[in-house]
Parts: sequence; structure tokens; C-alpha cells
Amino acid sequence: MVRVAALDRAAANELSFFANPRYAAEFAATGAGITLVSPDLAEHPGPACRIVVAKPQEAMLLVLPALYPPPPRATGIHPSAVIGAGAKLGKDVAIGAHSIIGENAVLGDRVVIGPLCDVGRDVEIGEDSHLVSAVTLYPGTTLGMRVRLHAGVRAGSDGFGYVATRTGVQKIPHVGRCILEHDVEVGANSTIDRGSIADTVIGAGSKLDNLVMIAHNVRLGRMCLIAAQSGIAGSTRLGDGCMIGGQVGVTGHLELGNNVKLGAGSGVMDDIPDGQMWSGAPARPQREWLKATSAFYKLADRLREIERQLNEKKS
Amino acid sequence: MVRVAALDRAAANELSFFANPRYAAEFAATGAGITLVSPDLAEHPGPACRIVVAKPQEAMLLVLPALYPPPPRATGIHPSAVIGAGAKLGKDVAIGAHSIIGENAVLGDRVVIGPLCDVGRDVEIGEDSHLVSAVTLYPGTTLGMRVRLHAGVRAGSDGFGYVATRTGVQKIPHVGRCILEHDVEVGANSTIDRGSIADTVIGAGSKLDNLVMIAHNVRLGRMCLIAAQSGIAGSTRLGDGCMIGGQVGVTGHLELGNNVKLGAGSGVMDDIPDGQMWSGAPARPQREWLKATSAFYKLADRLREIERQLNEKKS
Amino acid sequence: MVRVAALDRAAANELSFFANPRYAAEFAATGAGITLVSPDLAEHPGPACRIVVAKPQEAMLLVLPALYPPPPRATGIHPSAVIGAGAKLGKDVAIGAHSIIGENAVLGDRVVIGPLCDVGRDVEIGEDSHLVSAVTLYPGTTLGMRVRLHAGVRAGSDGFGYVATRTGVQKIPHVGRCILEHDVEVGANSTIDRGSIADTVIGAGSKLDNLVMIAHNVRLGRMCLIAAQSGIAGSTRLGDGCMIGGQVGVTGHLELGNNVKLGAGSGVMDDIPDGQMWSGAPARPQREWLKATSAFYKLADRLREIERQLNEKKS
Repeated sequence: MVRVAALDRAAANELSFFANPRYAAEFAATGAGITLVSPDLAEHPGPACRIVVAKPQEAMLLVLPALYPPPPRATGIHPSAVIGAGAKLGKDVAIGAHSIIGENAVLGDRVVIGPLCDVGRDVEIGEDSHLVSAVTLYPGTTLGMRVRLHAGVRAGSDGFGYVATRTGVQKIPHVGRCILEHDVEVGANSTIDRGSIADTVIGAGSKLDNLVMIAHNVRLGRMCLIAAQSGIAGSTRLGDGCMIGGQVGVTGHLELGNNVKLGAGSGVMDDIPDGQMWSGAPARPQREWLKATSAFYKLADRLREIERQLNEKKS
Repeated sequence: MVRVAALDRAAANELSFFANPRYAAEFAATGAGITLVSPDLAEHPGPACRIVVAKPQEAMLLVLPALYPPPPRATGIHPSAVIGAGAKLGKDVAIGAHSIIGENAVLGDRVVIGPLCDVGRDVEIGEDSHLVSAVTLYPGTTLGMRVRLHAGVRAGSDGFGYVATRTGVQKIPHVGRCILEHDVEVGANSTIDRGSIADTVIGAGSKLDNLVMIAHNVRLGRMCLIAAQSGIAGSTRLGDGCMIGGQVGVTGHLELGNNVKLGAGSGVMDDIPDGQMWSGAPARPQREWLKATSAFYKLADRLREIERQLNEKKS
Repeated sequence: MVRVAALDRAAANELSFFANPRYAAEFAATGAGITLVSPDLAEHPGPACRIVVAKPQEAMLLVLPALYPPPPRATGIHPSAVIGAGAKLGKDVAIGAHSIIGENAVLGDRVVIGPLCDVGRDVEIGEDSHLVSAVTLYPGTTLGMRVRLHAGVRAGSDGFGYVATRTGVQKIPHVGRCILEHDVEVGANSTIDRGSIADTVIGAGSKLDNLVMIAHNVRLGRMCLIAAQSGIAGSTRLGDGCMIGGQVGVTGHLELGNNVKLGAGSGVMDDIPDGQMWSGAPARPQREWLKATSAFYKLADRLREIERQLNEKKS
């Protein structure tokens, strides 16, 4: 085996996996040399050379590093990079072409800054963190260790805060911090604002997908997952282990507990206790939403039938 | 007092504020040296050293400049910047590292272009405007005075316009302008397309949050506020003073009046008269939406109960 | 005629068009030298100098190239560009200031790379493609011919894939490809992830608007149109000729047929057969959605009336 490949394009020297019955046809016709198959699908017709394993995807993870050695780590500081006065670079820091490190920024050992990044003054970046490409860190942004920011991430920007005064709309200065703790990963073109007075904090181990928006003063707990295009409005707090689907919106000044789950597309306007799953817009507990949604699409017919019966009785 | 801080992390030499009863516990336990408190919360238990003031947040605004002097303004033109032929730079213009000023661009006095910006040919930027970092202005984009564009803003890009012809989809050339009037602020990674034939115009004093999308030919009035991840589709016009919540969508070719308010997550498919607040998807006047939404979640139970009663009567 | 302009600002030497009765007042008052008018509006009061033509917008397309000759094509390789070892550049390739071409990248003839782009190692770009500005292509991304990527597009980034293991959340390495076929156009700040094991593929001739998100392993057919801020979740497949409105979300692992249409703001959670139009969240066939939505806003009143009648009968 020299590579992994999806069932429908795998060749005899490639490894594939089959963990979802939706792909039964692809499995039956696959040219893969070896296929990892989950136990419940073990009897499906398909190639003989299969390895039945509890979690094929997880098993594949163990194999990938052997088949795909990571590219050699970037090293050195590109001559086009601009390093500000007083910046402190740890051991084996790499800085890509046309990147800028602001005054008094502190980069830990083995930090990799890709090309075209703007690291503002007074930024702190923990060991082994990686800014992939074209990332902007506003002044004073603080990253823990092993943080990974994908292309186009903007962290530490001013929050959207204005007060209406007698003379018009006045901007609220943003003097809080923007803190991403250890092992946070943020997807392409996502934005995380700094705090106004309090801090914006993304808890350790949390993962954000692409085009996610985190507003000023939001506090995310540890190990939260937020799917693409979701947004958390100002000053809302999430506990640990929350799982947020795609295109979710959570309004400001709410408290979501630990291990809260939100269905894709939800619009949350209320506090949510620990461990609950909510969906819908406005969002409600999952069972309540399922019941209402299911009724919704039968609504017109049921109402008409009821009104017909009532009229019948009248006449 | 040397700094401001949120109630839950303020120390004896820090100033804080308490304006929302949700934070009563934090107020009771705060270590803040002084707390600004709104009149309705003046009697809450907490530290003795409090200043009761009508609008604590607005009051804080007056104090912030004293505690947080702005960083010294960027000056000079970085040697790595590329300035096109015929570009005109006003007095005290600053241009950051690796930025590009296109041919015949005109920058007013005291304009600050941050690092990694691409200012296209024939762009005009009014006095005291500021492109923070990694901003793209397509050729011919026009900014008024005191405009502030955050990292990753793209203005003047082609609109999404195609016509189906006999030979396939054909791109509509975009030859209209993209105009941001005085005092506009645009959040990180937002996009504003140029007009197709007419212009796209963001009215004076309007503020857009992060990841907002303004399509071709849209005309926004003065002093509109648009929260994060909202989008206005092509050729729609908004009046002055509109307030648009987060993740709102407004379809194309609509007219929204002055001072229209849209709840977060709304999907607008109709014209809206002056001064109205609408919500929901499809959006309706706020009262109508509240009534329908409230009924929605009781729907399944009420229908079942009605049908039970009808059946009872039958039998 | 020296230019085209919208009805409300066109002058005597400008050409305009009138194809939507919504703009009747502007037509009546226009100063345009000549106006193209669609047959159904031919009798509207307005300037005498009008040309009645079946599709005014399409007719305008034929005129635009004569009035607006494209700017001279960029040429040459800017001295600040960084070209990696082994990169192959075709004839007449242009590379803008501060752009980076990775090792072993292959650029076809007449490719134009704008300023501030990061083209990763092993990327392949077909003839006549154009990266406008500040685009990131992750290593190995593959573009066909005549592809156009607007400012801030990120293609080939890691998908959002993690598996929960006993020791915590573990990142799934992404080793699939990111392929954009011929004639694809992608709007500003959109993101397209690479595949995890399979590939992510955007079919020939498809057009994506701004701030669109395409997740790992998605396969889009040929000639699909996706409006702004829409997202397609992982492993979903779309057929040819699909038309997706703005702010649509499609969940993962679905199959949408050919020529599927989705209304703006839809949230799709089911497979959809060829040729159907769906709307709503959760989405349903258009007629079903229209019926339910229309009933929704009359819901509260109709339920109250029914319950009143039932109570009346009881008493």
C-alpha cells in the first residue's frame, strides 16, 4: 500500500475504508488493494481483501503518518520578512516570505509563521504554534502552544461596538485581549474579535471551522467544536465540550453550559443548561423542535381539515 | 486607576462597570477599585466604592482615552512598499510593509495603509482613512474621509452576475463603482462588490461588522449598522439609520425604508416601510412573527388536542 | 455613447437599460442618451430614444467590451515575487508584487497571479487562469484552465475533521486533493477545503459567490451557481446545473441531483432528486414549503378561532 484513496478511485496499491452503508455500491466495485470495514458492514458484497475493524476511520489515522510523511518543516527566516524592534524569537522559529513581526512580539520555540502574515506588536505566540498563511494577529493577541491558524484568520480585531450619543454613533474603544489557549485550531477566513473591556477567550483544545465569527468578550470553554459559518455574538459564554453545527447563530450575553449541542442552522436566543441538544430558529430543545417541525409541514392540510369538520358540524 | 477590567478580573487599581443585572454575582465579588453602576442597580450588594451614573458604558468611553493613549501613529513609507506610477500621496501618508499602491491612485492627507494591502489603480481614499491590514481595494474603488477597513476586507470585487445564453453561462462585466462614504467602518473579512452598471454605495457613517456581504448595486443609506455574517443581495436599497442583526439575509431588488430594524437571522423577501422592525424567515413585522413563533412551538400539542376533541364529538 | 450608466444617473452621452417595471419612475426621468427597453415595457412613458430588444441585459453585454476595453493585461514577474525551486512557468505568465510560488508548482501559459498570493508547492494552474489578489492555494491544489479566483479565496485548506479518541480530539490528516475544473470562478473570501481521503471537486464552469464555504470531499457538478454565504458540508455531492441561493446550508453526506434549485436561506437535510426546487429550513419541495409558510403566519389566529369554536360547542 502506497496511499489511501476513496473507494471509487482506489487502485490495487491503495488502502480504502468502508464505514457507511451509503457507499455500499462503491465498496462492491472498488479496486482498492485492502479495505478497512466496520463490523456491521462486514458481510457486504465486495473485495475479499478486507480488514474488519471497530472504527475504520480511527484505524486509518494510525496508518496515515506512515504513508504520508509530513513535508519537511519550514526553517529559517526569509530575507523578505520584516522583524520589528524588540521582537523575541525562540529556537528554530521559521518565518515565511513577506511576513511581518511587530515590535516586542514574543514567539516561542519552533513557532512557524507562514508567508504573508501580519503579527502585530506585543503579540505572544506559544511553542510549536503555526500560522499557515496570510494570517493577521492584531496587537497584543495571545496564542497558547500548538495553536494552528489557517489562511486568512483574523484575530484580535475590534469588536462591533458603538453607542448612540447625542452627536451620533460613537465607537467603543476595544482594550480587552484576544486569547487563544493551547491546541486551538481555527479554519480559513474565520474572525475572532478582541474584548471590549473583558477578554475574548477560546478555550484549550477548541476547534473552529472556516468562516466562523467570534465576537467581542465571548468565552468558549475547552474542547468546543464549531462548524463553518457559525457566529457567537458578544459576551456569550459557552462551557466545555460544546458541539455547534454549521451556520448556527447565538445571540449575545447568553450562557450555554457544558456539552451543549446545537443543530446546524440554529438561532439561539436563550440560555441552555449542561448537556442539552437544541435546534431551530428560535432554538428549542431538540425533541420540542422535532415535534414542531414535523407538525409544521402538515400544518396547512391539518388546519384545513379541522376547519372543514367544524364547518360541517355547523351546517 | 491604571486600567479598566471586567468585574470578574478587576483589581484594586482597576476601574470596572456594572450595567446589567445578569452580572450581579460578579459585582458582589469584584475586586475593582472603583465601579461605575447604573442607577437601577445602585442598591445591589457589592463594593462600597461605586459611582452611580446614568450610562456606565458611555461614561467609560470618556475615561478610556486617558487610560489607553493610542499607539503612536504609523508614519513613513516602508521600503518594501510598491508605489505605482502616477500615484498621488497626500501629506503624512503612511504605507506599511509589503503593501502595493496602484497606478494613479490618490491618497488624501494622513491616510494610513497597513501592511500587506493591495490598493488598486485609480483608487481614491479620503483624508484620515485607515486600511488596517491585508485589505484589497479593486481598481477604482472610492473611499471617503475617516473610513476604516479592518483586516481582510475586499471592496470593489466583481458582482455575482451571469446571464444564461445559448452557449452557456456568460459573465456580466462589472463597470459600476464601489463607493464607501465618509466615516464608514467595515469589519474583518467582509466583502463589498462593485456595481454592475449602477454603483454600490455604503452611506456615510454606516458600520459593518465582520464577514458581511454587500452585493453589486446595493445602496445603503447613512448611519446603518449591519451585524456579522449578514448579506444584502443585489440592487437592494436601504434608507438611513437601519439596524440589521447578525446572519440576516435580504434578497435582491428590494426597498427598505429609513430606520428599519431586522432581528438576527431574518430572511427578508419584501419591501419594508420606514421605521418598522421585522424578524423571521421569511421575515414579517415583529409582532406577527412573535405571535407565529410562539404558536409554532405549541403547534403539535394544540393540533392533537383539537383533533381529539373533534373525534370525540364525532363518536 | 461613451459609457453605460443606471437610469437614475445616466447622461446624454450614456447608454442605459430598462428591464424591470420597478424602475419605471427612473425610466420616466432618465437623462440617458439611449435606453435599451424590454418589449413588455416598450410603452412606458419615458425618453423617446429607446431601443426595444428582447433581453436588454444580454444586449448590453455585447456593447460593454466596445465601451470598456479591458485594462492592459499584467505582464512580467515582479522583482519582489519569490519563486520556489523547480517551479515551472508557462509562456507570458505574470506574477504580481509580493507573491510566492511554491516549489515544483506548474503554471500554464498566460496565467496571471496578482499581488500578495501564496501558491503552495506542487500546485498546478491551467492556462489563462487568474488569481486576482491575496489568494492562498494550499500545497497540491489543482486548477483547470480559465479559472478565476477573487481576492482572499483560500483553496485546499484542511477540512474540519476530528475523531474523538480516548485521549481527546484527534485531527484527521487531510491527504485528498482540491480540484477546481476549467472555467470555475470563486468570489472574494470564499473557502474550499481539500478532501480528507477522497477529493474535493468543483465541476467545470461552476461559479461561487463571495464568502461561500465548500467542505472536504464535496463534489460539485458542472455549471453550478452558488450565491453568497452558502455552505456545503462534507462529502455531499451535487449534480450539474444546480442553482443555490444565498445563505443556504446543505448538511453532509447528501446527494443532490442535476438542476436542483434551492431558495435563499434553505437548510437542506435530505437527498433531492433531479430538477426539483426546495426551500425552507429544514428544506422541503417548494410547493410544500410555500403552503406551510403561508399557513405559519396565519397560525396563531386560526388556532385561536378553532379553539373558540370548539369551546362554544362545548358550552
